Amino acid sequence: MGRWEPDSRGRLQEAALALYSEQGFDQTTAAQIAAQAGVTERTFFRHFADKREVLFGGSDLLRDRIVAGVAGAPSADGPLDAVSRGLDAAAAMLGEFRRDLTRQRQAVIAANPELRERELAKLAAYASVIAATLHQRGVREPQATLAAEAGMTILRVALQRWVSDDEERDLAAIMRDSIGELRTMAVGD
Amino acid sequence: MGRWEPDSRGRLQEAALALYSEQGFDQTTAAQIAAQAGVTERTFFRHFADKREVLFGGSDLLRDRIVAGVAGAPSADGPLDAVSRGLDAAAAMLGEFRRDLTRQRQAVIAANPELRERELAKLAAYASVIAATLHQRGVREPQATLAAEAGMTILRVALQRWVSDDEERDLAAIMRDSIGELRTMAVGD
Repeated sequence: MGRWEPDSRGRLQEAALALYSEQGFDQTTAAQIAAQAGVTERTFFRHFADKREVLFGGSDLLRDRIVAGVAGAPSADGPLDAVSRGLDAAAAMLGEFRRDLTRQRQAVIAANPELRERELAKLAAYASVIAATLHQRGVREPQATLAAEAGMTILRVALQRWVSDDEERDLAAIMRDSIGELRTMAVGD
Repeated sequence: MGRWEPDSRGRLQEAALALYSEQGFDQTTAAQIAAQAGVTERTFFRHFADKREVLFGGSDLLRDRIVAGVAGAPSADGPLDAVSRGLDAAAAMLGEFRRDLTRQRQAVIAANPELRERELAKLAAYASVIAATLHQRGVREPQATLAAEAGMTILRVALQRWVSDDEERDLAAIMRDSIGELRTMAVGD
């Protein structure tokens, strides 16, 4: 292991996002990413199964954090409050990433139908386990699914919002405000 | 055109859903569907571009009906009320299909990851145009997207509910009740 090895994962992510943004996801190869990051292709494949995983690695961890947030909500919390705790957990994890890298990731996914479908499928899978977690808290259908799906919509929209130039709130604040907007809309319609 | 020709589209749909259910979507060919429906393969391709379109044909029409429902809502309607009008329009169209065929369609899609992703992408595209329609009514973000996505979640869950054995409400009633459940949850959390 060379001197830079400990950070090679981060450098590979940065190099991949730069290349996906510049020349397109489909046109970029693992070899190009490795070269740009100054590591071997073998090092790339030690960190990522393929070039899609650069964008979706950490998905299971994020899901587990969100579910832990929902499951750990006080028993008095209703479904939306419990989902809001899950979103706080997501913000704590996602907020650590650099905003510029998140912005690149969002743009790369938005530009590619296959990646968009993968992202939607990921969020749908999250919603499904969140709904199951809400069931365990005694929440019935359709509330459990409505709360879980609303949470994933809020996560998706908040990420877009967070990386826009004129946004000053942090990710957690954006999501909490969105939950508030959902409540206001539902009441005041 | 033979004597049965006017109904060949309906017979092809019925044959396709039966075959997809029995032997799986991937294992079914257009030739098998045509044979089961008693028409030529050429007739199949006059009605459907491919075997996926048997499941997704009519998507644009459904989207247009929903959007027309939202756009035509009284100006005093809030975002959720306007979306509810769109769902009424969807129910009027989808409620004409036979429940047993809808049940087969749902099961076929649920069993196939690629079809599930296509269905999610379809609903995401619907949500996007519904949100744009709400913007034209003066609804801002994130309410427009939250209302539009909630509507598509309700449509998806209501279709599952509608085809279940112990459900006696019609599709429109299931969706209206779900909107009510969303409001109750948002208020009473």
